[in-house]
Amino acid sequence: MSQSLAAHPDRLLPADPGTRSIARSLLERVQDLPIISPHGHVDAAVIEQNTPFPDPAALLVSPDHYVTRLIHADGVPMDQLHASDSQDSRGVWRRFVEAWPLFEGTASGYWLRTQFEQVFKLGADLSGMSADASYDAISAKLTEPDFRPRQLFKDFNIEVLATTDDPLDDLASHKALTADASFNGRVLPTFRPDAYLNVAHPAWAANVERLIETAGDGGTGYAGYIAALENRRRYFVDHGAVSADHGVRMPATLKLDQADAEALFEKARAGKATAADRDAFEAHMMYQMARMSVEDGLVMTIHPGSYRNHHQPTFEAFGADTGHDIPFAINYTEGIRPLLQDFGTAKDFHLVLFTLDETVFSRELAPLAGFYPSVYLGAPWWFLDAPDAMLRFRSAVTETAGFSRSSGFIDDTRAFCSIPARHDASRRIEASFLARLVAEHRVSEDRAHELILDIVDGSPRRVFKL
Amino acid sequence: MSQSLAAHPDRLLPADPGTRSIARSLLERVQDLPIISPHGHVDAAVIEQNTPFPDPAALLVSPDHYVTRLIHADGVPMDQLHASDSQDSRGVWRRFVEAWPLFEGTASGYWLRTQFEQVFKLGADLSGMSADASYDAISAKLTEPDFRPRQLFKDFNIEVLATTDDPLDDLASHKALTADASFNGRVLPTFRPDAYLNVAHPAWAANVERLIETAGDGGTGYAGYIAALENRRRYFVDHGAVSADHGVRMPATLKLDQADAEALFEKARAGKATAADRDAFEAHMMYQMARMSVEDGLVMTIHPGSYRNHHQPTFEAFGADTGHDIPFAINYTEGIRPLLQDFGTAKDFHLVLFTLDETVFSRELAPLAGFYPSVYLGAPWWFLDAPDAMLRFRSAVTETAGFSRSSGFIDDTRAFCSIPARHDASRRIEASFLARLVAEHRVSEDRAHELILDIVDGSPRRVFKL
Amino acid sequence: MSQSLAAHPDRLLPADPGTRSIARSLLERVQDLPIISPHGHVDAAVIEQNTPFPDPAALLVSPDHYVTRLIHADGVPMDQLHASDSQDSRGVWRRFVEAWPLFEGTASGYWLRTQFEQVFKLGADLSGMSADASYDAISAKLTEPDFRPRQLFKDFNIEVLATTDDPLDDLASHKALTADASFNGRVLPTFRPDAYLNVAHPAWAANVERLIETAGDGGTGYAGYIAALENRRRYFVDHGAVSADHGVRMPATLKLDQADAEALFEKARAGKATAADRDAFEAHMMYQMARMSVEDGLVMTIHPGSYRNHHQPTFEAFGADTGHDIPFAINYTEGIRPLLQDFGTAKDFHLVLFTLDETVFSRELAPLAGFYPSVYLGAPWWFLDAPDAMLRFRSAVTETAGFSRSSGFIDDTRAFCSIPARHDASRRIEASFLARLVAEHRVSEDRAHELILDIVDGSPRRVFKL
Repeated sequence: MSQSLAAHPDRLLPADPGTRSIARSLLERVQDLPIISPHGHVDAAVIEQNTPFPDPAALLVSPDHYVTRLIHADGVPMDQLHASDSQDSRGVWRRFVEAWPLFEGTASGYWLRTQFEQVFKLGADLSGMSADASYDAISAKLTEPDFRPRQLFKDFNIEVLATTDDPLDDLASHKALTADASFNGRVLPTFRPDAYLNVAHPAWAANVERLIETAGDGGTGYAGYIAALENRRRYFVDHGAVSADHGVRMPATLKLDQADAEALFEKARAGKATAADRDAFEAHMMYQMARMSVEDGLVMTIHPGSYRNHHQPTFEAFGADTGHDIPFAINYTEGIRPLLQDFGTAKDFHLVLFTLDETVFSRELAPLAGFYPSVYLGAPWWFLDAPDAMLRFRSAVTETAGFSRSSGFIDDTRAFCSIPARHDASRRIEASFLARLVAEHRVSEDRAHELILDIVDGSPRRVFKL
Repeated sequence: MSQSLAAHPDRLLPADPGTRSIARSLLERVQDLPIISPHGHVDAAVIEQNTPFPDPAALLVSPDHYVTRLIHADGVPMDQLHASDSQDSRGVWRRFVEAWPLFEGTASGYWLRTQFEQVFKLGADLSGMSADASYDAISAKLTEPDFRPRQLFKDFNIEVLATTDDPLDDLASHKALTADASFNGRVLPTFRPDAYLNVAHPAWAANVERLIETAGDGGTGYAGYIAALENRRRYFVDHGAVSADHGVRMPATLKLDQADAEALFEKARAGKATAADRDAFEAHMMYQMARMSVEDGLVMTIHPGSYRNHHQPTFEAFGADTGHDIPFAINYTEGIRPLLQDFGTAKDFHLVLFTLDETVFSRELAPLAGFYPSVYLGAPWWFLDAPDAMLRFRSAVTETAGFSRSSGFIDDTRAFCSIPARHDASRRIEASFLARLVAEHRVSEDRAHELILDIVDGSPRRVFKL
Repeated sequence: MSQSLAAHPDRLLPADPGTRSIARSLLERVQDLPIISPHGHVDAAVIEQNTPFPDPAALLVSPDHYVTRLIHADGVPMDQLHASDSQDSRGVWRRFVEAWPLFEGTASGYWLRTQFEQVFKLGADLSGMSADASYDAISAKLTEPDFRPRQLFKDFNIEVLATTDDPLDDLASHKALTADASFNGRVLPTFRPDAYLNVAHPAWAANVERLIETAGDGGTGYAGYIAALENRRRYFVDHGAVSADHGVRMPATLKLDQADAEALFEKARAGKATAADRDAFEAHMMYQMARMSVEDGLVMTIHPGSYRNHHQPTFEAFGADTGHDIPFAINYTEGIRPLLQDFGTAKDFHLVLFTLDETVFSRELAPLAGFYPSVYLGAPWWFLDAPDAMLRFRSAVTETAGFSRSSGFIDDTRAFCSIPARHDASRRIEASFLARLVAEHRVSEDRAHELILDIVDGSPRRVFKL
């Protein structure tokens, strides 16, 4: 083909010529706006220390579970996708290049192709060159001085980047970046306490012990635990955090009275909690997290509905986040109700609800966000962060909740170099959706220009209090 | 813009020029047909007494939970949206006008904009004039003699309008309208017995007492209760009712034998029913309602799957139907089965099944309506009464159930002035869906003209026995 | 209309002219490829014995539950759709022709119209001729020597046709066909053991008795039962079977230890199994079937989620498969997990997962098939084997799982003459979906040509080991 897909100015835009022309003009309005990334998994230390990126496989293949999962599905054992002793990186890359055709039509394929063209300037599609040639070309890029995290941060036009951090993290990298006058971006920590709230987590008891000892107020029981969590949240707020994130299985919430909560807490610490006890305690802690958010202002985000580590043998060999978290059906309407009774209209409380079960978009999330001032619709996430899925999201929620109740785009990625491609895809899809409404005479073109600006730039600032 | 959105002849029609041109011609076929509204919530007394409409806020804002919910989500407390002592109506209106941009892309926004243009002749978009100017312009309209309910009923070209009524309502307004030779429309009551069937309803016991006393046959127990319900249904039939409507949480049905039903009934009256008892009794009463429908001919409509009054504090302060009813997942396949065993093929029994959970459209409702002669697909309802959602509905059900098994459009509204806009939107979407099938050579254009006529006019008459 | 719908070269292709032109070119690539049908319900004896087809009603109406269900929904009693004593076949046909307009927009209507035009050469739409005329025209066709199953098999360009067979079937017709040098097609048996695994099946105990006696290794208990199943699978493999098919209610799997399995088995044979016992035993047998598939190489296909024989009176009068199987919501993520723990990465094990609940496409099946090498996405099935539903399927799964993880098209039909129309519809929809991705610059046109070839021809051969 004469024009590469990754550079085509109309990529992802609707086919109908009239609608496409409207979409182009909407896209132009936002294409060069800075990137605001209020939720993701990049390591702050990488930016602070300006660590050079490792080789192509270690940068783009092994740590990206979107990528390894599909190659694994094709029959490549997981250990061939992780270069265990650094010499086999080129082998991992070859396996990836062989598997590259599998990525046609996927969201990952889109992000990767865009990176190859726009970040690594490969100049040809991956399938048009040998694996060694692309490996060498990317490797060469990675050694260039301009290809360090801080320069890319600037080149990518990132204004805000939130990381995801353990409650006991000292946030040293965040502090250093804030103190560094030569660095102009904002890198914000995010409080993520799952392993301290979920009794089923293997390290829960040890984590709680450490939390109480390190961050408590001297109390050793439930009250000390709560105080320690409050203290650490305060620490995060003091170091720039704007949100606390919660990865739970079910979006259940529950208000227990003090005595019941204490009793469950002690039972859990004694290793005697039943499955029902564990669920109740976690649901109660979601309620407590909301209560603390109301008090300290941290935006509360919930990411539920994934069966984590679905394949036990892979988990045992390769650990978590290796591509076998599988979604299931969830129920927000009943699950989130106890929390919303008390905090659904609390002043300045922002609760952003995500889902991997798209049936809740029109059925539950749009109706909730269209009534409760505290509730915002989380952007399509993970498997749903993809062009068609994003269009389905907008179609499902807009007619009930309009445009003002969405969180704005969240890239949720640990793949730093993919950030521009992800935000670009999102902007193209927002332009496509709005262009259709304009073409169908449902929204005026002038108003659509205001809306896309608000979606891309206004919403994330407003919802995440940036 | 030169052409207002609300007056654009192609509004809601598909963007592709070829498909749009087919849609235009289909729309033309039905655009001027009379409105048939077999399910809604307009008060018959308003039409009978030809009551002038109140001020703009009391007409268009405060009673419309689609409207207040989204303003409330934006942070405006509910009490600022209800003019408690009539002097603050202009204030409520100002708050609405400020919030007007939130309605872009919503179904409510579409209905309101269409009303402003076509009913209130504002001559400009709401955002193009001051809140006071629009308030005054609408207020002026409301005082015009031609702006009374009866004249609008005629201007709107309404042929049939069904109301929703308490079983003990004397239907005086309906009687008066029928007797009034100067009124040519049909205003029909609908039997809605929820508060007499659902033991969990706070007034259930008192309602049942009153029902048995007022309408029974002398028996004071379960038999008297059943007889009283049958009597009141008969009264409704005698006064023009064509349907009985049921708002239930889950679409559960159950056939109890006489003795078990009696025992549950007495337990419930004694205030000793467990949650399971209450569910069983309600499910049994759904079965009984079907049995009565088979006997007295009332079309049975079921509207399940909404968690009513989700936010207890709002319910306590402002009552029911104030915008915080939130849908959840339902199961028709198992729930409705007991009823269908006995009545699914009963002669002339019509059972119209609605849903807020769109996953059941392709999975359950189209398969059910495509086999059982008694089952009809209720039109997309409430949050799903919106352009994209209506297209999803047609796409989900047609390939299994064709076009003959749908109820026809239901506006389900208490907002009288919005009725034409709602029916107009539905007709435009039906034309759009059919036009696509024609453009894809799946239905011939001639046949599509017959189909749209049947969808808009034939189906509601046939399904609701009008 | 001048051009009949059934012969229109652009039928089912997208309306947008640019996209349509791409779709045309993609369709051309695969339009004349042989038909591969790895799952269906044609009777092998019909082909072996080259039995002439019966009259039009007995061929096209009575045995096709897609057809009878919709006529039944229109109020025609089921007995009027089955000519009980052969004289009333013309009456059944008249009833069908009267009901023909109900099929507008349905998948069945598309298949039938295409057959009337392309197989029976009616020369006019069914509604353009009298019922007697079409009955006579088709009857005449059916007596032609070229209208016997073997000639049609050739004319239809069928390369592979799998049947569905009882485990104790002697496969005589399959053997005869294989031995017949004059027959060039492949007609393969499929092992379908539901009635031997599901304790709730009315004939389970008798089936098991017969199985153990006929095919066992002498053991009379659980071990003998397992051995007999293994033996019969081996017999099927030896006679060309490539897959084993499982129609279960829920996609539950469970690994029981030997002693527990034995105990449940004996309890079930003694007629003392509870509902929970029955579910556990069936789930365990799904696990066993996977274990056997790993050993003997049969592809395992699962078709869950249908409430079979929903209307008891119809079942009692007319038996199973008469149009009242109704889908419900399923959960693959948790249900299939036990099986996948042990066999999800087993070498050469192919597990094809089907669903009637389309919510699992994006939520569960694409994530599962995008990680586990053993898992493949079953093509949209039954009510979902329809143009819009197939497009929704591709949109839901591709962004997560790409194109390589799908089974290829499955017609699943007992209506032999509909096979070409079904495969043709599928190819048109695949071309339409890919054409959109090309038009949106998401896939190159060259690559799309490779992809459609793989979807139509490569995938079924690879997934079903043909």
